[in-house]
Amino acid sequence: MSEHSSVQAELSRNSETSEPVLDNLVTVTYRHRVGNLADRLAALRDWLQDDLSDLDAALGRVVAMPTTDVAWDAAQYLLQQSGKRVRPLCVMLGARMGGRLFDDDVRQVAIAAELVHTATLLHDDVIDQGAERRGVSTARMVYGNAASVLGGDHLLIDALRRVETVDLKVMSKLLTVIADMVSAEALQLEMRKSFRPDRDIYLRIVEGKTAALFRWSLEAGGLLGGLDAQVAQTLGEVGQHLGMTFQLVDDLLDIDGDPSEMGKTGCLDLAEGKLTWPTILAAERCPETAALLKKIATDHVDVAAANLTEVVARIRNTGAIDDTRAEAQRYAELAMVALEALPVGAARDALKTVVESALRRTR
Amino acid sequence: MSEHSSVQAELSRNSETSEPVLDNLVTVTYRHRVGNLADRLAALRDWLQDDLSDLDAALGRVVAMPTTDVAWDAAQYLLQQSGKRVRPLCVMLGARMGGRLFDDDVRQVAIAAELVHTATLLHDDVIDQGAERRGVSTARMVYGNAASVLGGDHLLIDALRRVETVDLKVMSKLLTVIADMVSAEALQLEMRKSFRPDRDIYLRIVEGKTAALFRWSLEAGGLLGGLDAQVAQTLGEVGQHLGMTFQLVDDLLDIDGDPSEMGKTGCLDLAEGKLTWPTILAAERCPETAALLKKIATDHVDVAAANLTEVVARIRNTGAIDDTRAEAQRYAELAMVALEALPVGAARDALKTVVESALRRTR
Repeated sequence: MSEHSSVQAELSRNSETSEPVLDNLVTVTYRHRVGNLADRLAALRDWLQDDLSDLDAALGRVVAMPTTDVAWDAAQYLLQQSGKRVRPLCVMLGARMGGRLFDDDVRQVAIAAELVHTATLLHDDVIDQGAERRGVSTARMVYGNAASVLGGDHLLIDALRRVETVDLKVMSKLLTVIADMVSAEALQLEMRKSFRPDRDIYLRIVEGKTAALFRWSLEAGGLLGGLDAQVAQTLGEVGQHLGMTFQLVDDLLDIDGDPSEMGKTGCLDLAEGKLTWPTILAAERCPETAALLKKIATDHVDVAAANLTEVVARIRNTGAIDDTRAEAQRYAELAMVALEALPVGAARDALKTVVESALRRTR
Repeated sequence: MSEHSSVQAELSRNSETSEPVLDNLVTVTYRHRVGNLADRLAALRDWLQDDLSDLDAALGRVVAMPTTDVAWDAAQYLLQQSGKRVRPLCVMLGARMGGRLFDDDVRQVAIAAELVHTATLLHDDVIDQGAERRGVSTARMVYGNAASVLGGDHLLIDALRRVETVDLKVMSKLLTVIADMVSAEALQLEMRKSFRPDRDIYLRIVEGKTAALFRWSLEAGGLLGGLDAQVAQTLGEVGQHLGMTFQLVDDLLDIDGDPSEMGKTGCLDLAEGKLTWPTILAAERCPETAALLKKIATDHVDVAAANLTEVVARIRNTGAIDDTRAEAQRYAELAMVALEALPVGAARDALKTVVESALRRTR
């Protein structure tokens, strides 16, 4: 049995269960080396340690400007927070899959991926009027809206200029992705304060806001690595599914996460009435819960003051949390299946580890 | 005597007087056709009427999106206000100088110039927390900060995508210009609330915020028109000086303009403690005025309530208003001189009219 068909068999056999599927998928190529996810992540970190250090150093220099400037401070503030750097890692691994190491061009594109992400966070905080992100004050609370707007503009243009010097086709794709991100953010803004449990709208928002940049990061890496356009596109699909997995797990953690482990307050999305997959499912299944969620979205709920335990319990009772976990897993599996069509090697193994850790993360 | 040396002679002969110099400069090539500025502007409008209508129609379609979306509404709101469309006009005339009409590619680049300008206005209003722009409520007051941030992002990316389809070199230059604009805005933000009458800082801010986009618009037009890089660069210099003229006249109108004619409240910059050329000159010349201006910048002055007549009188007494007018004229003359080196023709004549009207405008 070929590796790919064995994966398919695993998938259909295990479609009702949860983590074992992925475990099996990952270990098809991985278990013989290191046993569990933590070990594989450690191995991945060891493998790319020099490149990741390079990246962090380069990100530290992005806003090292001659003037001390509040807008750059706002950008720096966010860049320095120990981010997961998942998008640059995608660029790095995409290039590796084509046999290209983390040279200066790949580094520029990897940096750009993180800068675009950071720029949207800066603008999002102004748009959402957010006070905290992951337990830390948002840049706009520290430096003001003005600095966050300008800091975001600065990073966005900086990112485009970096990619432009490397590859014009990749830059053109980045422009499209940023346009998608802005459209998705606008759609989310439009939906705010009017909880409308619409799956199609949710998917459009998440594809634009989250999945598009993951897709670009992997595809860009693959193109820089010299992979055929078709193969790079498949890498992009992996990114698309990885991004969806990421967002669905974010949705889960908001409602079901352990605040002490996450390092942030729970139920922020819930209190803001943001459309998430578990709230959509719960609203579909229970009219009372739908009405309650609508009320939360319409009113302004203070998360710190409000007791949302009952709402969370209602959502849980509909089975929405379990089914969101299953949905996240479904996307992770789609990513794994797409990966099976890609060249065998350490980069592919590493991407499987990334997908699995995206699904299993607790913060 | 060649046309150019005759202009130089006029300049040196009339260097102490005001408008006649420009009048002479413009009429070297223009007076034999139409007599005064109003007539020349009318002739210019007739000449380009179809192109300008095309442009307005195209700008009306920019944000005609399928969804009714508050972020696009914010962008549309600003785009629909009867702007001067000076930047697209520069693109148009630059291309005409090279013999290229307002075809689709030129139109895309002209639209991009207006979109970048509008995007920065949208973000500036959030940054400045402005309530009015030219007597009309700012988009952020109508649609909120969120829509203004997103609307600005949308227009910026839209502009870049349009230029990218036309000419990659021109797009690369636009990225640099936007980076300059953001840097200048950040510098202005840094200087806020601490009135520091520094000419160098003022020039850096104005070159970035205003002159850079004028420079790009004319140079881009010239490059699209097939002019040599050197000639296009001279067109860019014209744009640079034109932008400086524009800003200095803006500074003048803020302090010395007729609010009923301008269609906006006067002394807005003054009340915000923004660095302008007349306030810098006044502060240099009179320590008491400098202290007063510093106090205005540090405190928060309500323009509607405050009586700034005395401050304006003090500024006027230092001669700062007259000398700002002279400085604006100096830049207009630099633009005229640069124009003399460019190909003779209707486009050059039209640009002279634009420069002169920038200097003489009262709103």
